[in-house]
Amino acid sequence: MPYDLAPGATIGILGGGQLGRMLAVAAAKLGLKTHVYAEKAESPALDVASSRTVAAFEDRETLAAFASSVDLITYEFENIPFHTASFLADLNLTRPSPATLAICQDRLREKEFLASVGAEFASYARVDDAGALARAVAQVGRQSILKTRRSGYDGKGQILLREGADLAVTFCALGGVPAILESIVPFEMEISVVAARGPDSSFAAYDVAENIHENQILKSTRVPARLPPEISAAAIQLTRRIAEALEYSGVLAVEMFVVRNGERRELRVNEIAPRVHNSGHWTLDGAVTSQFEQHVRAIAGWPLGETGRLRTQYGEYWEMKNLIGEDVLLWPEILAERNTHLHLYGKAEIRAGRKMGHFTRIIDPD
Amino acid sequence: MPYDLAPGATIGILGGGQLGRMLAVAAAKLGLKTHVYAEKAESPALDVASSRTVAAFEDRETLAAFASSVDLITYEFENIPFHTASFLADLNLTRPSPATLAICQDRLREKEFLASVGAEFASYARVDDAGALARAVAQVGRQSILKTRRSGYDGKGQILLREGADLAVTFCALGGVPAILESIVPFEMEISVVAARGPDSSFAAYDVAENIHENQILKSTRVPARLPPEISAAAIQLTRRIAEALEYSGVLAVEMFVVRNGERRELRVNEIAPRVHNSGHWTLDGAVTSQFEQHVRAIAGWPLGETGRLRTQYGEYWEMKNLIGEDVLLWPEILAERNTHLHLYGKAEIRAGRKMGHFTRIIDPD
Repeated sequence: MPYDLAPGATIGILGGGQLGRMLAVAAAKLGLKTHVYAEKAESPALDVASSRTVAAFEDRETLAAFASSVDLITYEFENIPFHTASFLADLNLTRPSPATLAICQDRLREKEFLASVGAEFASYARVDDAGALARAVAQVGRQSILKTRRSGYDGKGQILLREGADLAVTFCALGGVPAILESIVPFEMEISVVAARGPDSSFAAYDVAENIHENQILKSTRVPARLPPEISAAAIQLTRRIAEALEYSGVLAVEMFVVRNGERRELRVNEIAPRVHNSGHWTLDGAVTSQFEQHVRAIAGWPLGETGRLRTQYGEYWEMKNLIGEDVLLWPEILAERNTHLHLYGKAEIRAGRKMGHFTRIIDPD
Repeated sequence: MPYDLAPGATIGILGGGQLGRMLAVAAAKLGLKTHVYAEKAESPALDVASSRTVAAFEDRETLAAFASSVDLITYEFENIPFHTASFLADLNLTRPSPATLAICQDRLREKEFLASVGAEFASYARVDDAGALARAVAQVGRQSILKTRRSGYDGKGQILLREGADLAVTFCALGGVPAILESIVPFEMEISVVAARGPDSSFAAYDVAENIHENQILKSTRVPARLPPEISAAAIQLTRRIAEALEYSGVLAVEMFVVRNGERRELRVNEIAPRVHNSGHWTLDGAVTSQFEQHVRAIAGWPLGETGRLRTQYGEYWEMKNLIGEDVLLWPEILAERNTHLHLYGKAEIRAGRKMGHFTRIIDPD
């Protein structure tokens, strides 16, 4: 068999959120078992996992038992501690590699990597202490955001620099941890490319997604993005270059800004998510192969599935809307709406800013 | 809330096969938990269940604990013992009702029910002993099949009456249990209607499926069936009448034969399956709402989803092929085929006649 896994094998998934949940379901569709390793007992992915471990990511004894109980390890989230991933990778096949994780979970290393592949991005400066922040402001400007180098997602670990704010206070407000100061990109559009690369270098991208954020959290996605074909093609090409340089296995997403430079449109990479991505959720209903099945295929060394968009050949587009916090209380209405696909994540507690579910639908041309 | 369940609730599923597995996944998509009660530890549905019980269907103590741990009970299969279902229904909301089960799991009662709703079916006679078999042959004819009244599926519990066979031996070969002798219907086509009825009498049917059986096991399904619209409409109307008469809640399938009567085509009901059905598996990829989600919606008292067929507006049709026994060894080829959706059930052991998975694809017009 030319493949790394056969049906019946078990995929270990680190992380128990909705991404792990949808990955586990996709694995089950292909006859695979899953073992979810989550830190909290009420994690949504545990509900659909064949085997479950609830333990800290630092618990090496439990990690070792987990590694030996599965045939391959993956993660739903890039904020798995690097030491956890590298410990596991020494014990069992782990995809994507911990090396990728090390790059993507540190904004400074990510920028250096992006520079090495010739990608463009917002100007930035390294900020290790309050003094460095003052120098960074002088270099990058006041129109900027201070971001922790590590553990940021959904707007966590970021502070917009306010006019007249005390820099020392701002640095402390972010926790006094190593950070970068990043200039704000005056973008025309936020987009993402969700794509997969297999260990045999096969590559397949979905159509470019156009994203709307609110309070730094993804609010909605529209596919395809309203972009000239050459810009979409460039975004996909850039994603391929990134995946190649990382020798990546699995699904990844590259978030980019589209900026105007006179008449020209240019791309600025915002960040790389080495995993299935919220802006790819529309693929569950709108693509031949969902991003979750695609990730499973890619890490298993199976042929990648087709990424073609469904039912939108005449100018219609797919819309995905997140149900954040109390949005989820709208579920009865959404359930009753025509041609609308509701996905709920099984999270018991509603909290502000928490992703509780999403829905997708096809929208007629503007 | 006008609904019987809210997201976060737990559906208890009796039976741990692939139907239970796909039901559990559909429930998870809608934010529901599942508790699968299976008789065998290696049951495929256990892999995706939030909670699991492995015990005999006769174990009343365990059944009572199961009933009290869930918000609603359903089954994946009509061969759950009636006493099990009625015991559970006394303890918790159970859909479809045990009364329906009692009709569908006894071929004699099923025929009597079908007669009561004016459905036509093959002529038959009751066979309680070898002597009755001789009288039944005189009445129904030699072109007939002896079927146990209970526990038959996928050709199990049936014997084709052979020319010159000893009737006493034939009766014993079937186990000497109560049976019916049913005349063989010289059919033009085998079809099924998969439909849902909600507790509020809402009703929604999928397009009629055309089925091919091999060794009494469903081999493939083609949707829509190649039938004149008035015959398809009649088949759906008949299914609706059956669902109404049963005061049914959930997805059911009615298998029928299309027979020629001179110039006319007529329908003969073969059997009622009070559950999601193999001939509805195409809906996972080919319909707005899958039959599994539809069953969950129906039993939860939620609005039924749309049953429209996807991507086949120009004469194409959906084809579903079962992977039976060693067919499943073809998985690498199927996985690599364009526009083909592979579903595997996670069954470890390949056995002849065992349903191991299926795949679907769109076929261009003939």
